[in-house]
Amino acid sequence: MASMVGATVVRKEDPALLTGRGRYVDDIQLPGAVSMAFVRSHQAHARVTAIDTEAARQLPGVLGVWTAADLEGLPATRSIPGMERPCLASDTVRFVGEPVAVVAAQDRYLAADAAAAVVVDYEPLPVLATIEQAMAEGAAPIVPGQASNVVMDQPLTEGDAEAELAAAPHRTSLRIRNQRLAAVPIEPGGCVASWDSTGLTLYATVQAPHPVRNELAVMFGLPQHEVRVVAPDVGGGFGAKASFYPEFILTAELSRRLGRPVKFVETRSENLVSMTHGRAQLQDIDVGFDDEGRLLAMRVAIVQDCGAWPDATGAGLPTLTIFMSGGCYKVGTIAASFRSVTTNTTPVAAYRGAGRPEAAYLIERVVDVVADELGRDPVDVRRVNLIQPGEMPFATQWPGIVYDESDYPRLLDTLLEHLDYEALKREAEERRRDPQRPLLGIGFSTFVEMGGFGPSPLFEQFGYIGGWESSTVRMNPDGSVVVSVGTSPHGQGHETAFAQIASDALGGIPMERITVRHGDTQTIQEGIGTMGSRAIPVCGPAVQRSSDKVRQKLLQIAAHLLEASEDDIEQDGERFAVRGTPGAEVTVAEVALTAYKPHKLPEGMEIGLQVMDYYEPTNLSYPSGAHACVVEVDRATGQVSVLRYVAVDDCGTVINPLTARGQVEGGLAQGIAQALLEEVVYDGEGQPVTSSLIDYQVPGAPDVPGMETHHVEVRTSFNPLGAKGLGESGATAAPQAVVNAVVDALSHLGVRDLDMPLTPFRVWTAMRAAEEGRAAAASDGTGPPPEAMRPDPAAPPPPDGMPTPPADGDDTWKVTP
Amino acid sequence: MASMVGATVVRKEDPALLTGRGRYVDDIQLPGAVSMAFVRSHQAHARVTAIDTEAARQLPGVLGVWTAADLEGLPATRSIPGMERPCLASDTVRFVGEPVAVVAAQDRYLAADAAAAVVVDYEPLPVLATIEQAMAEGAAPIVPGQASNVVMDQPLTEGDAEAELAAAPHRTSLRIRNQRLAAVPIEPGGCVASWDSTGLTLYATVQAPHPVRNELAVMFGLPQHEVRVVAPDVGGGFGAKASFYPEFILTAELSRRLGRPVKFVETRSENLVSMTHGRAQLQDIDVGFDDEGRLLAMRVAIVQDCGAWPDATGAGLPTLTIFMSGGCYKVGTIAASFRSVTTNTTPVAAYRGAGRPEAAYLIERVVDVVADELGRDPVDVRRVNLIQPGEMPFATQWPGIVYDESDYPRLLDTLLEHLDYEALKREAEERRRDPQRPLLGIGFSTFVEMGGFGPSPLFEQFGYIGGWESSTVRMNPDGSVVVSVGTSPHGQGHETAFAQIASDALGGIPMERITVRHGDTQTIQEGIGTMGSRAIPVCGPAVQRSSDKVRQKLLQIAAHLLEASEDDIEQDGERFAVRGTPGAEVTVAEVALTAYKPHKLPEGMEIGLQVMDYYEPTNLSYPSGAHACVVEVDRATGQVSVLRYVAVDDCGTVINPLTARGQVEGGLAQGIAQALLEEVVYDGEGQPVTSSLIDYQVPGAPDVPGMETHHVEVRTSFNPLGAKGLGESGATAAPQAVVNAVVDALSHLGVRDLDMPLTPFRVWTAMRAAEEGRAAAASDGTGPPPEAMRPDPAAPPPPDGMPTPPADGDDTWKVTP
Repeated sequence: MASMVGATVVRKEDPALLTGRGRYVDDIQLPGAVSMAFVRSHQAHARVTAIDTEAARQLPGVLGVWTAADLEGLPATRSIPGMERPCLASDTVRFVGEPVAVVAAQDRYLAADAAAAVVVDYEPLPVLATIEQAMAEGAAPIVPGQASNVVMDQPLTEGDAEAELAAAPHRTSLRIRNQRLAAVPIEPGGCVASWDSTGLTLYATVQAPHPVRNELAVMFGLPQHEVRVVAPDVGGGFGAKASFYPEFILTAELSRRLGRPVKFVETRSENLVSMTHGRAQLQDIDVGFDDEGRLLAMRVAIVQDCGAWPDATGAGLPTLTIFMSGGCYKVGTIAASFRSVTTNTTPVAAYRGAGRPEAAYLIERVVDVVADELGRDPVDVRRVNLIQPGEMPFATQWPGIVYDESDYPRLLDTLLEHLDYEALKREAEERRRDPQRPLLGIGFSTFVEMGGFGPSPLFEQFGYIGGWESSTVRMNPDGSVVVSVGTSPHGQGHETAFAQIASDALGGIPMERITVRHGDTQTIQEGIGTMGSRAIPVCGPAVQRSSDKVRQKLLQIAAHLLEASEDDIEQDGERFAVRGTPGAEVTVAEVALTAYKPHKLPEGMEIGLQVMDYYEPTNLSYPSGAHACVVEVDRATGQVSVLRYVAVDDCGTVINPLTARGQVEGGLAQGIAQALLEEVVYDGEGQPVTSSLIDYQVPGAPDVPGMETHHVEVRTSFNPLGAKGLGESGATAAPQAVVNAVVDALSHLGVRDLDMPLTPFRVWTAMRAAEEGRAAAASDGTGPPPEAMRPDPAAPPPPDGMPTPPADGDDTWKVTP
Repeated sequence: MASMVGATVVRKEDPALLTGRGRYVDDIQLPGAVSMAFVRSHQAHARVTAIDTEAARQLPGVLGVWTAADLEGLPATRSIPGMERPCLASDTVRFVGEPVAVVAAQDRYLAADAAAAVVVDYEPLPVLATIEQAMAEGAAPIVPGQASNVVMDQPLTEGDAEAELAAAPHRTSLRIRNQRLAAVPIEPGGCVASWDSTGLTLYATVQAPHPVRNELAVMFGLPQHEVRVVAPDVGGGFGAKASFYPEFILTAELSRRLGRPVKFVETRSENLVSMTHGRAQLQDIDVGFDDEGRLLAMRVAIVQDCGAWPDATGAGLPTLTIFMSGGCYKVGTIAASFRSVTTNTTPVAAYRGAGRPEAAYLIERVVDVVADELGRDPVDVRRVNLIQPGEMPFATQWPGIVYDESDYPRLLDTLLEHLDYEALKREAEERRRDPQRPLLGIGFSTFVEMGGFGPSPLFEQFGYIGGWESSTVRMNPDGSVVVSVGTSPHGQGHETAFAQIASDALGGIPMERITVRHGDTQTIQEGIGTMGSRAIPVCGPAVQRSSDKVRQKLLQIAAHLLEASEDDIEQDGERFAVRGTPGAEVTVAEVALTAYKPHKLPEGMEIGLQVMDYYEPTNLSYPSGAHACVVEVDRATGQVSVLRYVAVDDCGTVINPLTARGQVEGGLAQGIAQALLEEVVYDGEGQPVTSSLIDYQVPGAPDVPGMETHHVEVRTSFNPLGAKGLGESGATAAPQAVVNAVVDALSHLGVRDLDMPLTPFRVWTAMRAAEEGRAAAASDGTGPPPEAMRPDPAAPPPPDGMPTPPADGDDTWKVTP
């Protein structure tokens, strides 16, 4: 029997999606539904002195206008205890886009008109738009009840790092800003709530309907089964649709009050200020190393910008960064600490990779800087530091963080086989000497990240009930199969991958006989959701287990029907036969039908062919890879073009090379975009400068090269499927590959530090500054030197109400290919 | 802990239903839905020579008109193989109301207008409106491909009945017509079909959504899980909503073709000709007995009217009648045979009791006739024949038909305790002597019927996949419980009863923490349905078993958390404690939450608190009872009034006295109505005379007395709950109690045979005929004598196209209280 796991299979999802039969939240039409719109703050920090809703209420088709005062007792969204965010701001607004009131009207247009007719009077408060401002002496805490804006302040270990650092032959420091990003799923946020006598139903574009159900049940005091959350087709999530939004509560409450379904779908501009942002870390690193570039010790200090309302995920992101800060290297002791800080900006939470891309960027930039300082080849420095296959599983210094099986040197070797590195280096050297040609640079990224979240104790810290997943496999009496899974996809191709896993575990039932169901808490009562590259490594084994149990029962019934020993039964797709007895055979459908006929079953066997099973991973898995990027830098404009991107990944067992490639390529596109294009920018008043897709640059086809993707499959022993997860690898790997390549291209100029995104202006400025010398650049006014490209953390906050010029990012709009 | 099983609990269903929040099929509104209407035959038997749909197609809002020719390849409804009924008649119509075409339009009114605009040309064929006409020499077979109109012809046993009959000291004969009835659920038939990329969804007012799903999947060649059938709130079914209707297929097919949801809801007139009818048996009985009235032998010959299209249920009804023809008596050998016959009338299938009320009526009339012929008290004749408790379980002569535990003499004794029989007899005697006073009669019914269908081998004969039921019990992490059941209610109060069973089996979880779900094949993947008084005896034990498994797990976790032995754990409602260790306790919710935390569970325990289980009964159960009815008969008009009705039932374990009383009273109302009011009447041309509720008399409050209901609980050993079922007892018991009472009232006149319904005209005619002598009555033209009240079976069929006057039933409209 040919295995389906590992086979290139076209996606089961695509026929419906490609022929317009996808069904997204905005396609959900419930009879009598009304539309909800938000009145959002246009102030970053202000007291609300009055809200006049009268004019809005008088408009035709308006069913109501509600402010916080009208919704007394409404639960707040989930968060760290004591920092719960109210669904509507009451006395104070804390970021631009924070909801102040909601309106319900007959349709979306009337609702928007009514929202616009609500008049809110604000009395401005000092705006703390940056972590530096928020941490400054005397800055008032943004979240009520907190002593300061530092909501978490945690040294994670000290060990002997200080001594080791002091003793190291060489030592250097870096400051990295991992810029704030927006998830920008092609489908913005939205939901439809319908409250009737059986309870609350919420259709929502979410990655994890079960936690949303669990929260809503607690919030509204309903037993869990009276809340049904359905994630229909979901057009991308990237972590941001794992957050819990006020609209879930507000549409539900309005539906309860109005007795009608209530729908809310974001505009793109709303999406960019309302959906949680990602990254937004400031990292200070000191590293000690020897002559070979061996990393002897490291000190890492992280400041995480949480935005206005911290939640467990956003405030906890640096934990994951620190856990992974050693990358795939044997680093001496790492001393790490982090502070999570509130600012007057959109809240920050998970974004593709959530804390681990920040780590991979950090350590891969460190390795390149070390190589640069030693004048060594960055590949060689990587090689001396890599954890060897014989050392795996590899226990890091962090309790419970144990890397599973992989072969990092082989990943690097495989990458180099495909790259022709020596020729590229020669080419780069030649170009440096020819001022007529663009510069060429080669950047590397040997990375490892975390996949397969849980296990439960870890995952509970992020607010989930556990770290397991569930699967129910049912074979119908006609032999067809439905696999229901606890994870809920948003573009990944779960229906295809889980069907492949089930097909194998069921002994070769054809793919077209298997349907995968997900995303409805009424049909599937148990689940956690899709995030942290967990669907395949955690839910995959659950599907395998439940399928296998169904198959064992099939074999028993087949043996009973064929009056043979179970050991003699062999299965060929949809047929069971007795080995060595020609003609003694029975179809899977016949066996399946028999399962529903108790008088025909073996004595004592239960009726039916339906098995629910769970899988709880023993540990996280650790997808890894070795990537390289080749860029060209235009000497006149600073424009960076990615010429080649070569990715060698180890995600353990590859379920489907086609969807695996899609995952890698999609992640790389986002990673390249982080390196070159994307950043959420606020001005000094906390006003978002990038509040449309004209200003926030997502990658287009010309920005992303054709990619060369390869796999080295080393099965993990941490789950029976051997799969490690792949959803976040591309986004984790690419930024440093691109940035290292650009820095390599500019290395002859002495450029070492360049913060993302590497916009043409920023690269041009860096080149120019390097060429002209820092002092000259700082005085001629044509552009700021690299280290001045961000506001000085020590600078005092701007005076009340005084607009300050954009400190950075104002160049984003100038990115024209 | 007080047991919930047996407690009087108000219905969980009622708050929603009583406040207008019920959701029936016609309340289902899907966006873009269109309305379907039928063009139905107004001929009972005719060739269709032309259908002109052009005018209908031109009407505004019409989306299409389809005839059989437009729907080539459309599956036929399920039936006996070879007798499948097409969804639309093509060349021939076979009963008034048979669909000939369908139209779809924007709304119901436009659809009705369009249906009326379709012109069908008919060429009349000889109408076979009665079984006598259908069985007559030379009658052409109605169902194509059949040799005659007798579609089943089965002697069930011969035994030594002939010899025993011949040897009996006394012998008498009866002919009984158990008239044709309509189910008349308060909600008529209807469905909404919606076909999209995920498959077909059908909302339908049905008793058993799973068999409908299974059939539709086969018919449309879909895997079972791509068909979802939902029974929302269902307003009565009474067996007729267990039939499979053409509209299920047609709305589905039209939805597939139009790409829009399609709704169909019957009008009442349509309901009376389209929904399957019940009863419609002609029984010929010979009985031999001794001086004490002991029933020594019996010959039973049944002709079942199947209507135009026989199905397995309708044609098989006499099997059940024969199985139960011995009633609760030790009868010598019974020789039985039956013929199932097609006629040009609406198809006949299950109606409350389905074959068993016909048996109970038969044997209870036999006992009264035997008593009458011997001049003995009917109670005494019952007593000498009753099966004694020591003889139970009692194997009848029919293989597999074994009565479970009961105490028939005690039922009769209990009845007599409540009745004051001697006083009533004296009163009846006094009234007979006083011509100014209405006559009084006392009638008895000691009955037994079948409940708890399966087991699977029996139930498969009626077209079901099996005779089991399923239940899934899930405890949420908050300690609340959802019980999902395979049976689907239509007014019975399942949500209450199953919650009571689960509450006990879960160790006393309060009722309000338990929700019962049903009626959706997507949420509940396995089920058979509600018919044959099977919900409590078959699904009840499934709920008990799955609840018990959940409780066992709770106890294990509680013991683990409390570090105690499981044997020492005691549960008090929502709390577990260690016996004898004050303060060592944990709430059910804490235990439930722990079930989702694998690291806190005992080694090796599975995650979660969800158990699916099945129950397959080892045998049918046999609800029984002793009922008595006291009637008054107006001497001048023949009007019968029920003065008292006393019911003593043994349904085994009573789950809820309140809902049990509702079941008994509702069944009695229908049984009394069969005795006095209801009959579906066709004229000689096969035209339905009773096609509205003006003509078809359903009981109103004045027709039904306050009832005295009592229970004797003898647990059955055939299922662990000890419950036998109760849904059909009332309808099974009442007709003969009423008829025996009326015959008793008239007994001094020599009236012995009176066919139901006992309309005033029929009673008056019988009284008058008896008083004046048969010959005189037959010649004076004021009314037909009793034996002429039905067409003569030997009479030739009416000539082609010649209308014949209504043979019977034309008096129905004259029933005025």
